[in-house]
Amino acid sequence: MESCREIELEGHIIDSGVMTLVFDRIMDMGGEFEILTFNVGKLKTDTSYARLRVTAPDDHLLDAILSELHRLGARTPEIGDVTLVPAEGDRILPKGFYSTTNHPTFVKYRDEWLPVERIEMDCHIVVDEKEKRAICTPIAKIKAGDAVVVSETGVRVVYPERPRKVSTFEFMHGTVSSERPSEAIIGKIAREILRSKRKGEKIALVGGPAIVHTGAADALATMIREGYIDVLFAGNALATHDIESNLFGTSLGMNVKTGTLVTGGHKHHIRAISEIMRAGSIKNAVDQGLVTGGIMYECVKKGIPFVLAGSIRDDGPLPDTITDVVEAQDTMRCHIHDLGMVVMVGTLLHSIAVGNCLPSYVKTVCVDINPASVTKLMDRGTTQAIGVVSDAGTFLPLLCEQLEKLEKC
Amino acid sequence: MESCREIELEGHIIDSGVMTLVFDRIMDMGGEFEILTFNVGKLKTDTSYARLRVTAPDDHLLDAILSELHRLGARTPEIGDVTLVPAEGDRILPKGFYSTTNHPTFVKYRDEWLPVERIEMDCHIVVDEKEKRAICTPIAKIKAGDAVVVSETGVRVVYPERPRKVSTFEFMHGTVSSERPSEAIIGKIAREILRSKRKGEKIALVGGPAIVHTGAADALATMIREGYIDVLFAGNALATHDIESNLFGTSLGMNVKTGTLVTGGHKHHIRAISEIMRAGSIKNAVDQGLVTGGIMYECVKKGIPFVLAGSIRDDGPLPDTITDVVEAQDTMRCHIHDLGMVVMVGTLLHSIAVGNCLPSYVKTVCVDINPASVTKLMDRGTTQAIGVVSDAGTFLPLLCEQLEKLEKC
Amino acid sequence: MESCREIELEGHIIDSGVMTLVFDRIMDMGGEFEILTFNVGKLKTDTSYARLRVTAPDDHLLDAILSELHRLGARTPEIGDVTLVPAEGDRILPKGFYSTTNHPTFVKYRDEWLPVERIEMDCHIVVDEKEKRAICTPIAKIKAGDAVVVSETGVRVVYPERPRKVSTFEFMHGTVSSERPSEAIIGKIAREILRSKRKGEKIALVGGPAIVHTGAADALATMIREGYIDVLFAGNALATHDIESNLFGTSLGMNVKTGTLVTGGHKHHIRAISEIMRAGSIKNAVDQGLVTGGIMYECVKKGIPFVLAGSIRDDGPLPDTITDVVEAQDTMRCHIHDLGMVVMVGTLLHSIAVGNCLPSYVKTVCVDINPASVTKLMDRGTTQAIGVVSDAGTFLPLLCEQLEKLEKC
Amino acid sequence: MESCREIELEGHIIDSGVMTLVFDRIMDMGGEFEILTFNVGKLKTDTSYARLRVTAPDDHLLDAILSELHRLGARTPEIGDVTLVPAEGDRILPKGFYSTTNHPTFVKYRDEWLPVERIEMDCHIVVDEKEKRAICTPIAKIKAGDAVVVSETGVRVVYPERPRKVSTFEFMHGTVSSERPSEAIIGKIAREILRSKRKGEKIALVGGPAIVHTGAADALATMIREGYIDVLFAGNALATHDIESNLFGTSLGMNVKTGTLVTGGHKHHIRAISEIMRAGSIKNAVDQGLVTGGIMYECVKKGIPFVLAGSIRDDGPLPDTITDVVEAQDTMRCHIHDLGMVVMVGTLLHSIAVGNCLPSYVKTVCVDINPASVTKLMDRGTTQAIGVVSDAGTFLPLLCEQLEKLEKC
Repeated sequence: MESCREIELEGHIIDSGVMTLVFDRIMDMGGEFEILTFNVGKLKTDTSYARLRVTAPDDHLLDAILSELHRLGARTPEIGDVTLVPAEGDRILPKGFYSTTNHPTFVKYRDEWLPVERIEMDCHIVVDEKEKRAICTPIAKIKAGDAVVVSETGVRVVYPERPRKVSTFEFMHGTVSSERPSEAIIGKIAREILRSKRKGEKIALVGGPAIVHTGAADALATMIREGYIDVLFAGNALATHDIESNLFGTSLGMNVKTGTLVTGGHKHHIRAISEIMRAGSIKNAVDQGLVTGGIMYECVKKGIPFVLAGSIRDDGPLPDTITDVVEAQDTMRCHIHDLGMVVMVGTLLHSIAVGNCLPSYVKTVCVDINPASVTKLMDRGTTQAIGVVSDAGTFLPLLCEQLEKLEKC
Repeated sequence: MESCREIELEGHIIDSGVMTLVFDRIMDMGGEFEILTFNVGKLKTDTSYARLRVTAPDDHLLDAILSELHRLGARTPEIGDVTLVPAEGDRILPKGFYSTTNHPTFVKYRDEWLPVERIEMDCHIVVDEKEKRAICTPIAKIKAGDAVVVSETGVRVVYPERPRKVSTFEFMHGTVSSERPSEAIIGKIAREILRSKRKGEKIALVGGPAIVHTGAADALATMIREGYIDVLFAGNALATHDIESNLFGTSLGMNVKTGTLVTGGHKHHIRAISEIMRAGSIKNAVDQGLVTGGIMYECVKKGIPFVLAGSIRDDGPLPDTITDVVEAQDTMRCHIHDLGMVVMVGTLLHSIAVGNCLPSYVKTVCVDINPASVTKLMDRGTTQAIGVVSDAGTFLPLLCEQLEKLEKC
Repeated sequence: MESCREIELEGHIIDSGVMTLVFDRIMDMGGEFEILTFNVGKLKTDTSYARLRVTAPDDHLLDAILSELHRLGARTPEIGDVTLVPAEGDRILPKGFYSTTNHPTFVKYRDEWLPVERIEMDCHIVVDEKEKRAICTPIAKIKAGDAVVVSETGVRVVYPERPRKVSTFEFMHGTVSSERPSEAIIGKIAREILRSKRKGEKIALVGGPAIVHTGAADALATMIREGYIDVLFAGNALATHDIESNLFGTSLGMNVKTGTLVTGGHKHHIRAISEIMRAGSIKNAVDQGLVTGGIMYECVKKGIPFVLAGSIRDDGPLPDTITDVVEAQDTMRCHIHDLGMVVMVGTLLHSIAVGNCLPSYVKTVCVDINPASVTKLMDRGTTQAIGVVSDAGTFLPLLCEQLEKLEKC
Repeated sequence: MESCREIELEGHIIDSGVMTLVFDRIMDMGGEFEILTFNVGKLKTDTSYARLRVTAPDDHLLDAILSELHRLGARTPEIGDVTLVPAEGDRILPKGFYSTTNHPTFVKYRDEWLPVERIEMDCHIVVDEKEKRAICTPIAKIKAGDAVVVSETGVRVVYPERPRKVSTFEFMHGTVSSERPSEAIIGKIAREILRSKRKGEKIALVGGPAIVHTGAADALATMIREGYIDVLFAGNALATHDIESNLFGTSLGMNVKTGTLVTGGHKHHIRAISEIMRAGSIKNAVDQGLVTGGIMYECVKKGIPFVLAGSIRDDGPLPDTITDVVEAQDTMRCHIHDLGMVVMVGTLLHSIAVGNCLPSYVKTVCVDINPASVTKLMDRGTTQAIGVVSDAGTFLPLLCEQLEKLEKC
């Protein structure tokens, strides 16, 4: 038997592509729609309002369609409170659990709209009934008895809107090409970084060891020293090779100033790790005057937090590396909630890990030599992103140079 | 002084994303808009109609904005005839020449709407005033005195609409990923090929030498013999290595059955070319019983036309290779106008060359091991495309197997 | 002041390329050499012997050169015992520590040559003086007081020799190309797998989630069921999507039989994780009849060990995932020492992690869609490797088919 | 019946890897060898001499083995004159034709060793019996009656030797990695360019349109103006977009200073072509003051020859583009014989075309964003090459900067 329900959409729903997506989903999923009301904003700054009747061959399919539309910001006109079901055990979700998008989200609880705190993709909503707070929670952190939101009822997603002004960042998934003017794009990114700093937003850098191998560690160290970076997300390898480079002038045994393999260089990264083991931590090594420069040194000196997340490829690892991946994720999350921009350079693993935790409104810059990596990051990323197919070893020095030039003006 | 003009849009303009693009362009280019009328199609099959007033700070910018909107199918409500200016010399375009999209296009000539024949991207429109025909013409073919369309006045572009039904092909630029179920996608492509054949549409294959190197020549030869391919676009290398493979069992000196380099194999491709030189042509070599199997053999036996376009990397080349690239383009164009589907495998050069000449409604399948190549083809391609990141050497045998299985059912 | 020392080399030192490398290193590092004796094996099966005097401008450089030559199997004619220095603390190496190659290695201890057990690259040698055993130990496992080998004195490396017969595997670093006959190479790999099984060697598979996404999970499940795989190294994602695929027919929400996105599919992977959480483990879920097929199911049914190593990208993770990366490495090592062949498919992270722990004589097959990943694996890999640039979704089904065909013969 | 023959090798045959390759080939092809004499050069600068008896199961296989060894510089102790057979027709080679390597080659003609002029890979040797000259000739240029060398008898190949000193260039096929210090390598390349210029060697640049798209045209124009480049090999696209950039500030419609798409920009490249059509040639357009800067402008002003080779992807093409690919190859060859170094940036097609014509001793620098392209170029390249995985848009400006810095010192 045919079922139908009405939904509403509001905002810049045409130019943000939401209407297109809504019609798309309904047709792809075998539904029908009838437009009941469509008040189109007359001027560029006006918002639009649409009310649709969605029909499907059966209840099950209708629910499925509405669930997809929900994620695009559609809402049913009359909404009750969210449905809460207690978790039956630690890390066990109730059947029918609600799964989050990375867009700003609200839940209706006792007739009040609570913002969902620390929103990120593919997590769940736990309502703290005493405090009247809704918290986005990954499955690993669900505790027995937590009041977990099930179904979309009472949940409202605010789908992102296309910026009204011309922006450096591409709205939604931009195309990725290596055939764009590199220096012009680097100049734009530099200006965006400065703009963010002036607005008081925090900026994170997610970096892979290629930064050190390609000789860009000096540039990144300078950026940290000059205050452009507020938190560093990286792995054991970046820190190890950065310290190796400071202690022995090499990265994986290659002299970073000359590009030649150095005698005995194959041992340098283990020697670097062993020295830090002896000192007890990177901070101690800096304090003892053992490590005298580089990315990690500048973080320590400047008091910039860094999260070194462990991976199964790691040598050592350094005592500062968080070897438990769930703990590493939690630590990353602590530094994410007030970021305005994230610059990701030369690491798919760490960039995806950080990207998974970001709300959709954080701006991201994704830089990698491999276009498939940039595409993957852009597809999983936030709604305002710039993808750059370039070489960390030339990108970062040129970015640093641009920042310095612009600061002088 | 501010200028304004009214434009109209009609069709499935919301779900095809045209309205989104129109608002996008106006905002990106610094214009303003006011919606005068917006009749939204109530049901899935209804079309919509919009009338907008576009405003810009000056005439020049307004023209620029309207020129972009024109390419999306927007038209000014009252339209006069096209403006024609004679070309002052061979291969010289009049100032302000109109440049084509690859969408179906019509020109208003003496109050009549003439369809533009052989439409393809980045060409020009010549009106044959005697015959009352409008022909899409590349710059290289413009002759002195040709009546060339200038400005967008009197030109109407029919922007493609999203298919009403679920389709295997992605509408506009799909995302490209190597992480999709390969065999399922190959099955879909096989079904689309059969569907096209049943509808009487012609299918072209554009192929690179990787088809032979990866051992997929047998599969392609079978597909040609069984009538799935109506025209072959390739280069000297594909034909040379195919013939090398038939004569000596090798491709670039590697045994295609065992994957091992063969003694003296480095000479085989030149020996193959020399044998065809002696025979005079590939057809002669087949007729003389010299070439007894393979891709080119099946083309000759089946009477399937092939276009071997020369490139500066070519050895030889074979006597059948068209060494002049402009002549090669013209020959390709002769086989393009009645195609329904094009399958592109393992060649960026030939695929882009063919893709450049295709109208937007031809379906394309783009297969390459390099995701960046697939992305590039999808971005330049037609509005209904499937991108597959796969290995020619496994893709074609599995496609051929699927076709045979489905034919039996 | 100029220093010099004599070294010896023995074996198939010309055709294995060792002599070339020895001369290379000396010249690159600014040394000189004089050949004192060079007895060349007259016949293909004879070994050669060379004795060289190496000269360098100073002691320091001479040591550096000799240290490099040591890794190629060169030895000084008169050798004393190894030098042992106790570790001053847990995870702290004594200065001048010896760093291992992945080649078979022996240490001279009390005039006896002890084989170094569980040899792997970039580790260290601890001599158990009571048991008279030498054990290869990563820095993370060094305990205070361990007798750690320092300097090359008393250490002998057996540099790998080129197989005397034609081999499917390439000796040392082969070239990587996507332009080789895929089916022929798959046939060879199938024959090598059968050869290894017949010799009683164990085979490991290292796999990424692309195996499931590309629809190759069935093929791998079949290979496990039929006994071709003795241990599985993977991550949380492969297991999650394999179970998602069994429970819901999707992988990351995409139907693996049809390649289309499924309604609500975005929640499937979390639902799969939550179900396993509820069951307590993958084994429990299989035993309870919840999971009824797929890769993990076959492992459980067949009693094949699997190591699921955690990563910071993980959702969940599953209760079976080892979230501590050092513990995950240790668990991998437990399954590595008796392997004869490792097949790596679609994961750079896990493949490098496993590859880091392999002795140089284990045969490896590296399969990835990205040629740069294959190159990286081949460069870090063992001395007998095959690199294949292909698509997991077509490679594994064709490999499985070949194995079944060959078994029937 | 077993056959055997003796061969000789001379030179730095161990450290250049020739002996390793010789033993490899014999074993791979199923032969046996016995070393009759092996005089090893005692010191680094001494050459070695080896005499081997090669045995194979039959004459045919023995010939095959010897043919492979010949290409490595092996020679039979007593050599007669080359065998010459007249070509039976234009572009038809006699059976058993000799196919060239890219190494320096000599033919014995009337007891005299003639150097083969203009040696390049995969061509043939024609002896001008009157002039006593041997000329390397591609099949397309063979004329009826030409005296063509058949078999290896009387042909001597001088296999390249590893440089005695540390070199920036890698001998034979180097590994390709994106993880090397970019600025250090750019510095080295700058020094090599200056060294070549000082030695009076000519330098070619082979460039793709990515140079213009990525905003590096200014840097290349500067390098040409300052005299670092002696000849430019490119295609229609590079020249078109360079001129588009000069006339309209865009490359394929994208503003190269800002990286934003420009209104109406999609027409710019055709407008650029049309303007040059009207002027008649690039030189005319420069002379008329139409084109006032950029790569092509600097070539014209400086009198630097350029070869624009046509391809089937070309729009237009420009009147300067050579549309016939065989003619384009011939024109390239005219500029190749006195080159000392070739820098290849951002084009696989043109780089392979030029690389195919180079003798093995020309130094090459291969730069591309795609590591697979760099690998392909290195594998086909000359014996001294540097591969750089980088972005043309950052590489060239940094190279130009380094050249200017070094010149000042």
